[in-house]
Amino acid sequence: MEDTNRQVLLKRRPTGMPKPEDFAICDGPVPDLQEGEVLVRGIYLSLDPYMRGRMSAARSYARPVDVGAVMEGRVVGRVVRSRAPSVGEGEYVLGGYGWQLYSAVPARSLTKLDPNEAPLSAALGVLGMPGLTAYVGLAEIGRPLQGETVVVSAASGAVGAVAGQLARRAGARIVGIAGGADKCGYVESELGFDACIDHRSADLGGALDRVCPNGVDVYWENVGGPVQQAVFPRLNDFARMVMCGMVSEYNDLEPRPGPNLMAAVRKRLRIQGFIVSDAWQRIGEYRAMAAPLVRSGELKYREDIVEGLDQAPEAFIGLLQGRNFGKLLIKLGDDPAATA
Amino acid sequence: MEDTNRQVLLKRRPTGMPKPEDFAICDGPVPDLQEGEVLVRGIYLSLDPYMRGRMSAARSYARPVDVGAVMEGRVVGRVVRSRAPSVGEGEYVLGGYGWQLYSAVPARSLTKLDPNEAPLSAALGVLGMPGLTAYVGLAEIGRPLQGETVVVSAASGAVGAVAGQLARRAGARIVGIAGGADKCGYVESELGFDACIDHRSADLGGALDRVCPNGVDVYWENVGGPVQQAVFPRLNDFARMVMCGMVSEYNDLEPRPGPNLMAAVRKRLRIQGFIVSDAWQRIGEYRAMAAPLVRSGELKYREDIVEGLDQAPEAFIGLLQGRNFGKLLIKLGDDPAATA
Repeated sequence: MEDTNRQVLLKRRPTGMPKPEDFAICDGPVPDLQEGEVLVRGIYLSLDPYMRGRMSAARSYARPVDVGAVMEGRVVGRVVRSRAPSVGEGEYVLGGYGWQLYSAVPARSLTKLDPNEAPLSAALGVLGMPGLTAYVGLAEIGRPLQGETVVVSAASGAVGAVAGQLARRAGARIVGIAGGADKCGYVESELGFDACIDHRSADLGGALDRVCPNGVDVYWENVGGPVQQAVFPRLNDFARMVMCGMVSEYNDLEPRPGPNLMAAVRKRLRIQGFIVSDAWQRIGEYRAMAAPLVRSGELKYREDIVEGLDQAPEAFIGLLQGRNFGKLLIKLGDDPAATA
Repeated sequence: MEDTNRQVLLKRRPTGMPKPEDFAICDGPVPDLQEGEVLVRGIYLSLDPYMRGRMSAARSYARPVDVGAVMEGRVVGRVVRSRAPSVGEGEYVLGGYGWQLYSAVPARSLTKLDPNEAPLSAALGVLGMPGLTAYVGLAEIGRPLQGETVVVSAASGAVGAVAGQLARRAGARIVGIAGGADKCGYVESELGFDACIDHRSADLGGALDRVCPNGVDVYWENVGGPVQQAVFPRLNDFARMVMCGMVSEYNDLEPRPGPNLMAAVRKRLRIQGFIVSDAWQRIGEYRAMAAPLVRSGELKYREDIVEGLDQAPEAFIGLLQGRNFGKLLIKLGDDPAATA
């Protein structure tokens, strides 16, 4: 065990797109444990678009990270010390905290992981928060019906890939939107979408018309910006717009105008946002459904694993620019399953 | 019985705000009856904001009125001739059609009215389409809870007055928005809203802050424009925006931008539109609930009755400008109850 704890801190609040200088990398102390806590040595850190919101002081659904504090994030790791009877040293857990190698966390906040059930990293992606996000948004808002057309933006990403595949299992026709030929090819041939459009197309609206001849019944919104502008007028009567995120606008200094909402009346649209943490109690139900599909290969996923905590700021900036390809993870330490 | 049928036709499609010259008043023939039809002599014609949409050729949820055709509208009247065994001459009915004195309509499309149960005119307002609109929008989208704050725009209007009063019956705090001191006074003192704001206030946002210290949980959208802009940022987490109409924008030549939808994610907003005709099967349920409240005076309403079909174009233009005060009706003929 190291005797220092490598950490990435928020050095200053970014203006627009974050820069590497907005973060500080330092070696802090390995934390002491209180009674009931365990020390988790991280193996994988999840990087997700929502973290951009935490870097800003603006009011949002969660407290911002303080300047000078460790960046927020979820970690899969191994328990290396325990002051809780319920969790033993050597156990694998979801629930480490922050962009750092070591975290002291209450044992009751942890989820134990069985490396034989699924790869450890899946607990941060297809079987974790992003997968649950897709599941909850479809179940509570999107509700795709047999034969409907579902359009998913950021379709090769951690949430979009699951949202599309679950919508297909409900009998919908699924159309992805992704950035570049490689991602579009993957979405069509690996994830099994009926079509995938490159959002960099000169004529995104025309491309949508070609692959959605019957319009759009469910739009899974991950990106905002010009993609939203192209999809919105193509929503059908009674369409649902699942408002999950608008990552292309997270670095805007001023909010852009949105669509005129009279269409919501005329077309009886339902435009609804949600935050997965409100539905965290459904994680067990989701994993019970999804884990067998992951093991059988019916629910596919792709990870983009970057080695080393020091690379986290650059990788996170790339995530906001769409440079990742699949669920972005930082590898913090050895994964016994991956190296076995 | 007259031997001609006074009618108001759509002479041309308006550009922006309709003008009297967009309508033509003429004397057509009293229609002949097919088997199964009755001839209805109108007593009241309902004028409603949705009719502006029918005057345009643009795609909407219903067919536009053809140029040269009779303007669309609902009429309460008396059967003066019948070729249907189920409806006799002299009966009072809801279901006459159009801006005209006489209409031939299938007997099965009529609702018989008992003038002793409620005033005939109520079937076009508080106990008719506008009342059902309020009921359905609250039941299916707004769902106000005890102690929540509900803001209703166009609060003195046919829909808004019922929406607010029903929300209060659900235990909500109700705040109206209306145009001018007379309407605001009526909304507060007669309809029993907790407060009413004049939308012409120089500082609408500040006024909202004062009367909605806990933010807005349900916004009943009838008007769009600057009122929408003032209410939207004041929506609470999990707020519902009942998209019923945006009358202040119906004459726009180009749609205005709407709000940035990232707020829908952050605040888990539900922004949902509806059209009352989709829920017409609930009219019986609504009337069974509302008619006793109207009779007991617990559900209040106000009518703005304009005499004579020839006044309909000017009255309709006034409706789009907010000049009416209460449910706007054109009186086409003698109401036996009113004159009794």
